Amino acid sequence: MAEETEISQLGEFGLIDRLTSGTKTEDPSTLTAVGDDAAVMQYVADNDTRVLVTTDMLLEGVHFDLTYVPLKHLGYKAAVVNFSDIYAMNGTPRQITVGLGVSKRFTVEHLEALYEGIKLACGIYGVDLVGGDTTSSRSGLVISITCLGTAKASDVTLRSGAKDTDLICVSGDLGAAYMGLQVLEREKTASAGQSDFIPDFAGKEYLVERQLKPEARRDIVKDLHEAGIVPTSMIDVSDGLSSELLHICKASGVGCRVYEDRIPIDYQTAVMAEELNMNLVTAALNGGEDYELLFTVPLTDLQKIEKMKGVKLIGHITRQELGCVLVGRNDEEIQLKAQGFTHL
Amino acid sequence: MAEETEISQLGEFGLIDRLTSGTKTEDPSTLTAVGDDAAVMQYVADNDTRVLVTTDMLLEGVHFDLTYVPLKHLGYKAAVVNFSDIYAMNGTPRQITVGLGVSKRFTVEHLEALYEGIKLACGIYGVDLVGGDTTSSRSGLVISITCLGTAKASDVTLRSGAKDTDLICVSGDLGAAYMGLQVLEREKTASAGQSDFIPDFAGKEYLVERQLKPEARRDIVKDLHEAGIVPTSMIDVSDGLSSELLHICKASGVGCRVYEDRIPIDYQTAVMAEELNMNLVTAALNGGEDYELLFTVPLTDLQKIEKMKGVKLIGHITRQELGCVLVGRNDEEIQLKAQGFTHL
Repeated sequence: MAEETEISQLGEFGLIDRLTSGTKTEDPSTLTAVGDDAAVMQYVADNDTRVLVTTDMLLEGVHFDLTYVPLKHLGYKAAVVNFSDIYAMNGTPRQITVGLGVSKRFTVEHLEALYEGIKLACGIYGVDLVGGDTTSSRSGLVISITCLGTAKASDVTLRSGAKDTDLICVSGDLGAAYMGLQVLEREKTASAGQSDFIPDFAGKEYLVERQLKPEARRDIVKDLHEAGIVPTSMIDVSDGLSSELLHICKASGVGCRVYEDRIPIDYQTAVMAEELNMNLVTAALNGGEDYELLFTVPLTDLQKIEKMKGVKLIGHITRQELGCVLVGRNDEEIQLKAQGFTHL
Repeated sequence: MAEETEISQLGEFGLIDRLTSGTKTEDPSTLTAVGDDAAVMQYVADNDTRVLVTTDMLLEGVHFDLTYVPLKHLGYKAAVVNFSDIYAMNGTPRQITVGLGVSKRFTVEHLEALYEGIKLACGIYGVDLVGGDTTSSRSGLVISITCLGTAKASDVTLRSGAKDTDLICVSGDLGAAYMGLQVLEREKTASAGQSDFIPDFAGKEYLVERQLKPEARRDIVKDLHEAGIVPTSMIDVSDGLSSELLHICKASGVGCRVYEDRIPIDYQTAVMAEELNMNLVTAALNGGEDYELLFTVPLTDLQKIEKMKGVKLIGHITRQELGCVLVGRNDEEIQLKAQGFTHL
């Protein structure tokens, strides 16, 4: 058993010192980080720079289950999902603040593992941890991360710019994170009461990784930039493709047609859907937490998009009165619904 | 009984629409607020502008007790304590994001009351509500607010700039919010089991108001600016004077001498301390949540400080080796301790 230190032994300030020790700031826009009433940033001083801010709250028992989510992975994921929101604006994440509520069952070592994951994500994505608030909670763990980023004014991509005839594109593949959750839940059930239980993830490694350690699509934002493409609208797929398509269509005042046979789905996702006797398309449309980028580009960017790796053209934008439609393999039309993956 | 709407009737997106309806953005730096993956800001494009960020997490049962804290007051306070952190940097709060975790016992009307308080605070302090995340919680209410602000580079006031011989100043009076909490707790105990109980706050109105509806000292930041004073260090008194003095001394590598008879204490605070048989100075030193500003200025600013309303000179900075000392009424010297008002 590793050494365990009760949080009360360090106190609030001692704990913060320990958790944030060794955090170096790397982004030139960070002037002062942890250790004052607020962090201080100096962004590029031109009329073309926009500052972006997004926030996410994760609660134990709602968004994560610590029986199968290692704290380091949780920290990594909590940071990455915020970076994903900044990439979905076609921006660059630069700083995060971390709010934590922790109940008595957590030790200093637990929080160090969580912070290790947060710092790892920050290191990989080049984001600075600049502040936070750590407090006690009556029950469970609460994580609230806020991310600041920047973008050039001409790059900022909202949800509201999609236009009739625009192409609809999505990165990576969909439904795998949701299937990963099913694998983890299944093994949790199978393990009930067995302390020596070894979970069986054979052939499901990709699904489990997508659920436990998602990545934000910085590479896609970079590729778009290098290809000279500014999407007309963009959103990250956190609540499921269906829900995100409806967000874009509502915000842009348009409709859409997406084609079932074009939705990118990994082989492991398909196998798992069959094992669970679940409809694969439903899983891909409504399973959340993929953190892929869904975006629209003008028809004139077709050739550029076709050359991009890891991006799939799944449909096109229509006039609003044509509705939001999924075209099935037999040309049947299904109205998209915001079933989503909401926690309310 | 007022109409009650279950949150599930609206769903996440319907709820967010309802809570954020009617929020207008006023600050010219806010370009896009609620409704996208991130909010978009454009701060003044000069090399002299700094962006500030601070975050606070409040948890039910730890930071607030809904048996005596009205939700509207709670929302107001949750916003104001964040503004206070930006003022403590000698800056101006501009935007906030609000993360909420809510359990099933809360209705839409409850959250509307909470948001009413947040929006009221935003309106009064000229801050825009630009984003958030609302999710379910397994138990109780969680509020996480992040505040963005700006300051001129030459105005930014850290905790680390205090120098030997600097004067130590504090705004308003101390200990009242802590005494307000004692009043509320006393009435809660007295009310146990009585549905028709009417709490008695006679002669304690100021204390209760300081606890339930604190204000951030925007006026002091303005007065300092108009007097041409840039403090050498500043912090807001959220955890008690003693703890905040130690923060400044540690960050600045200095010591301090503060005088017991100079600590500003309201009459109601003194009366309540006597009723509770509590040491008044201990309450003023260690009682938290006053949200006054504690700052240091060079000796050369003495005359300017003496002219400022609502600011009291309570001592001076010394060399580090002289320690952090409270000088009592009989010239006895007491080492300051970071007893504080921590929730860990």
